[in-house]
Amino acid sequence: MKPPDTYVVRNVRPLGAAPTDILVEGGVIKARGAGLSAPAGTAAIEGRGRLALPGLINAHCHLDKTRFGLPWWPHAAGPQRDSRIPVDREIRPDLMPSTAERARRLCLHMAELGTTHIRSHVDVEPEFGLAAVDALLEMRAGLEGGPIVELVAFPQFGLLTNPGTAALLEAACRAGAECVGGIDPSVIDGDAEAHLDTVFANAERTGAGIDIHLHESGEVGAASLAMICERTRALSMAGRVAVSHAFCLGTVADARAGALIDAMAEAGVAVVTYAPGNSPVPDLKRMEAAGVTVALGTDGIRDVWTPYGDGDMLERAMMLAYRLGYRRDEDIELALDAAITGGAKVMGLADQGLAVGCAGRILLVDAETPA
Amino acid sequence: MKPPDTYVVRNVRPLGAAPTDILVEGGVIKARGAGLSAPAGTAAIEGRGRLALPGLINAHCHLDKTRFGLPWWPHAAGPQRDSRIPVDREIRPDLMPSTAERARRLCLHMAELGTTHIRSHVDVEPEFGLAAVDALLEMRAGLEGGPIVELVAFPQFGLLTNPGTAALLEAACRAGAECVGGIDPSVIDGDAEAHLDTVFANAERTGAGIDIHLHESGEVGAASLAMICERTRALSMAGRVAVSHAFCLGTVADARAGALIDAMAEAGVAVVTYAPGNSPVPDLKRMEAAGVTVALGTDGIRDVWTPYGDGDMLERAMMLAYRLGYRRDEDIELALDAAITGGAKVMGLADQGLAVGCAGRILLVDAETPA
Repeated sequence: MKPPDTYVVRNVRPLGAAPTDILVEGGVIKARGAGLSAPAGTAAIEGRGRLALPGLINAHCHLDKTRFGLPWWPHAAGPQRDSRIPVDREIRPDLMPSTAERARRLCLHMAELGTTHIRSHVDVEPEFGLAAVDALLEMRAGLEGGPIVELVAFPQFGLLTNPGTAALLEAACRAGAECVGGIDPSVIDGDAEAHLDTVFANAERTGAGIDIHLHESGEVGAASLAMICERTRALSMAGRVAVSHAFCLGTVADARAGALIDAMAEAGVAVVTYAPGNSPVPDLKRMEAAGVTVALGTDGIRDVWTPYGDGDMLERAMMLAYRLGYRRDEDIELALDAAITGGAKVMGLADQGLAVGCAGRILLVDAETPA
Repeated sequence: MKPPDTYVVRNVRPLGAAPTDILVEGGVIKARGAGLSAPAGTAAIEGRGRLALPGLINAHCHLDKTRFGLPWWPHAAGPQRDSRIPVDREIRPDLMPSTAERARRLCLHMAELGTTHIRSHVDVEPEFGLAAVDALLEMRAGLEGGPIVELVAFPQFGLLTNPGTAALLEAACRAGAECVGGIDPSVIDGDAEAHLDTVFANAERTGAGIDIHLHESGEVGAASLAMICERTRALSMAGRVAVSHAFCLGTVADARAGALIDAMAEAGVAVVTYAPGNSPVPDLKRMEAAGVTVALGTDGIRDVWTPYGDGDMLERAMMLAYRLGYRRDEDIELALDAAITGGAKVMGLADQGLAVGCAGRILLVDAETPA
């Protein structure tokens, strides 16, 4: 599984640029240029003019829930989000023993499709405690040379409304989860201020980043988002707080959305979208103009929440551009960039790219242009 | 290219049902049953338990415009529909000589992906007259054993506003196009009554079916749709009139949409959607309950209108279900059914299916269930 960390790849087009060679030594890009001379004995890969991309970043998934690789499971939950939570809870005991194995299979599958970094939410709650967190920590420790997996301890089944969860979130962060999560502070947890105070206090104590699921729509979600921006500013956590989904941006009046986007830019709060089929998708051009980072994920893949998905981040970038009605190359490239630069910013990766000094993770694609 | 017309396929699951064998003789399904005995010498195909589907139907595409198979073409038109029409017109002379070849390549590609029937719109207008129609008529005549292609003579560049087009539409129908098309009778052509009268009069004289592009949104589109239903009833054309896109159904008040859907059911007017990314998609469950046929197409594939698409109808059915937020198997199957039964109704095919007596066009898919 472990890829070579020294090699030269010849005749590739980095992000669609003119053909060149790229030399990777010790896992880092050391030189770029046509006809590059490499030390004797360096493994050479013939790129045959293919497009070269940096590794792709799946900034939002749920490795602990996936049924990827298991037999087809007819969707059992009702049409609303709150009908999926009890079904998720009900079937979890059967799935728990296979968590590490299911997650590992999906990680390796995503790696085959060019994903080098994965941020996965992982559920904690009093009934099963840190079992899923422990399984994913164990799984990622064994992924030598595979994708790098970051964990968000996630209160899927409520935080304030599910006593004991707050302490588990903190224990998860101390055990190795890089981020603490939250979920719909008003609609699911009933007290936005107290929910967010708990999440941010955890981050302050443990040094974790923050990634909050915000499905809340309209003004309820807008109020939650504004509170997240306030707290991020107050704690100087710019660049370390993300809001996943943020459907409210597409369901409030345009001026209100604009004010929220400005607040996010000012506070350094990013958005992570999965390009849903029938919920609002953030307008990448508007976000870019305002200076808000947008990252892209898959969300759940064949789990109790959704029967869709195969972990292909290039397809997901296409879906994001398609959902936005983007047609011009430079617009479509914004969607791909959400899966590269956007994800790198959210995950705090300084070395994701194809420049000299970046990590030598290079994806070759048989395509004419990034679009 | 021509597939065998007599064979037995063993151990397949028709639309997910229990494993069985299917005997095809002379291109028609003659018998079904496990352990079927076939005449000596009949070619046997081992299905290995795969899912069997009838051939898929692409009920809306534009074979004459596609750049599929040509080098990548960065999208040149602006964001609005009316900016694409002049660009389409401008680049057409360069594309015209290769129309038959481009269309043929795309048809064969779609056939490889399981499509057996294609309804393609084809542009007519005074500047190039019937050149595109002639090219597609010639192309389909040479597609022996390939997909069956039906043509809709289409006034892409206006009907009333582009004098001479009406006569060309009629000539196209007499030359072999099965349907006459129309486009945004109010917004593009400026006079909905006169536009529709011209289209329906053509159909009455030539015996053609009708398929009208209706991008018009809100009440303007609703008024056009109501007029189409009225004329369909008045001329007893139930089952022979389709409206492509019908975005207005998703942009008027719910009660108005309901009244339009009822009018469509009563008149026998179908909808053809392509599951657009950022325009409304018809709610299949509501349409089914009302008795309105919904068919599925790809719309343009890598052309001046869109850089997307590869002609895969299974992916398109997935996209339709995804856009509708459908998660349950029976809901997702409605989207697949739009690409089978819906398309068959719109194209007037009585023999598309896997029952005895149906055409022996069987697609084997390595999947557990239709969903």
